[in-house]
Amino acid sequence: MKTRDRIGIFDSGLGGLTVMRAIREACPSENLIYFGDTARVPYGGKSPETIIRYSLESAIFLMEQDIKMLVIACNTASSYAVDKLKGVFNIPIIDVIEPGAERATSVTKNGHIGVLGTKATIQSGAYQKAIHKRLPDAQVYSYACPLFVPLTEERFLNHPATELIVKEYLEPLKKAQIDTLLLGCTHYPVLKPLIQKELPGVQIVDSASTCAERVKKLTTPTDQKGSLQFFVSDDPAKFQAIGPSFFGETIPTVELTTQLSLV
Amino acid sequence: MKTRDRIGIFDSGLGGLTVMRAIREACPSENLIYFGDTARVPYGGKSPETIIRYSLESAIFLMEQDIKMLVIACNTASSYAVDKLKGVFNIPIIDVIEPGAERATSVTKNGHIGVLGTKATIQSGAYQKAIHKRLPDAQVYSYACPLFVPLTEERFLNHPATELIVKEYLEPLKKAQIDTLLLGCTHYPVLKPLIQKELPGVQIVDSASTCAERVKKLTTPTDQKGSLQFFVSDDPAKFQAIGPSFFGETIPTVELTTQLSLV
Repeated sequence: MKTRDRIGIFDSGLGGLTVMRAIREACPSENLIYFGDTARVPYGGKSPETIIRYSLESAIFLMEQDIKMLVIACNTASSYAVDKLKGVFNIPIIDVIEPGAERATSVTKNGHIGVLGTKATIQSGAYQKAIHKRLPDAQVYSYACPLFVPLTEERFLNHPATELIVKEYLEPLKKAQIDTLLLGCTHYPVLKPLIQKELPGVQIVDSASTCAERVKKLTTPTDQKGSLQFFVSDDPAKFQAIGPSFFGETIPTVELTTQLSLV
Repeated sequence: MKTRDRIGIFDSGLGGLTVMRAIREACPSENLIYFGDTARVPYGGKSPETIIRYSLESAIFLMEQDIKMLVIACNTASSYAVDKLKGVFNIPIIDVIEPGAERATSVTKNGHIGVLGTKATIQSGAYQKAIHKRLPDAQVYSYACPLFVPLTEERFLNHPATELIVKEYLEPLKKAQIDTLLLGCTHYPVLKPLIQKELPGVQIVDSASTCAERVKKLTTPTDQKGSLQFFVSDDPAKFQAIGPSFFGETIPTVELTTQLSLV
């Protein structure tokens, strides 16, 4: 068996860098390797079968890079592929759904929890299930926001058009008397100011920091400074240019891999 | 050699159905087969290498379905892959860039032509080149509109947010005194009313009907009613549900293929 000494993190594109950022902060001595499947992004509107296949391919690629732990830093992939990946690979696998549900159920007071995500994530019912496991009486209100990913990738963050779309997507949540809102997509935290404006007083939570705490519990810190490595399936230059706004620091080198397909 | 009796049409997703619709109207006796690469949609923000690879894989799939002619019903794929495909396959290959440029240069009076498309299409310079080949003195003003595809796929067609985004994307064109605007993406014609409102008096053209005329010139009509067949790489049910709004008639059966990869 290989010496596995790195933590692998994958996402359909850039959003997972917010999760990697939280892991980097919580576990600075860990060697981290990121894979963004930018050739096939986005996953959020695709079928369960395709999401599972792409997740499996991404995980295989990272297993070949000697990882000791896998973080599924994509809500859509977590919603459908976590059981499959746990069944196939004999290393710890952390997703972002469970930590998000844990955080939301620990902060809610009235048990009314809103969830926003991609179409695929919402259709999976994964958040609802994870929330009810911890808080069986919770009222969960889940809505898909398919335009949030393109709007944030185009950096339409404080744009009046984005404000209108946020208003429209959140309309049903306003009536639901939620006290907690779970951002079930790694892209959404950048829209937090607009979302908070529509839902004043509601606690907005995401899974990045809770996910990082789970990773921390499974690792032992040392004095070394952990290494960083980044792979994508398309356009390393674009990833390097836009990535820092999600990762919070510059991204030195991005490598391209196109050897992904199972078929 | 096989008996090749069908016309193959491919696109990254649904938009190419507008081109198929025009071909169906112009050549009702032709057997048409469509492939939408819905597992990897969209192409418009991806790199030239990836767009060429996906186009090649789509063309290989259609060649195996006994096609006699290939229509690249996607502006992004046409922008990058047409020369590669013409070099590889020994059948007539029609793209949508040349017909669009032909139409625009034949209707302009002042030679000021606007072009809207995906990031990849605009960056390729393919329209500019095709327009200048016919009208060397033309002034071409090209702009990428990356949010148009998600907005139209989400059916935000008459939404105030879409209106704001259309306004913003068209702002530089207003000053350019264009008399003709080329919609260089098969998704954009559904936004024509909003675009026309911003640019009153400007002739708006797209490539579907000119492309269909080219196909017609290369075929011989018969009395038979041509057959239709549809393949996608993901989620046939979704394609069948949304497809008719692009194709203009119901879509009886959609088949799934996941055998696409070259690697």
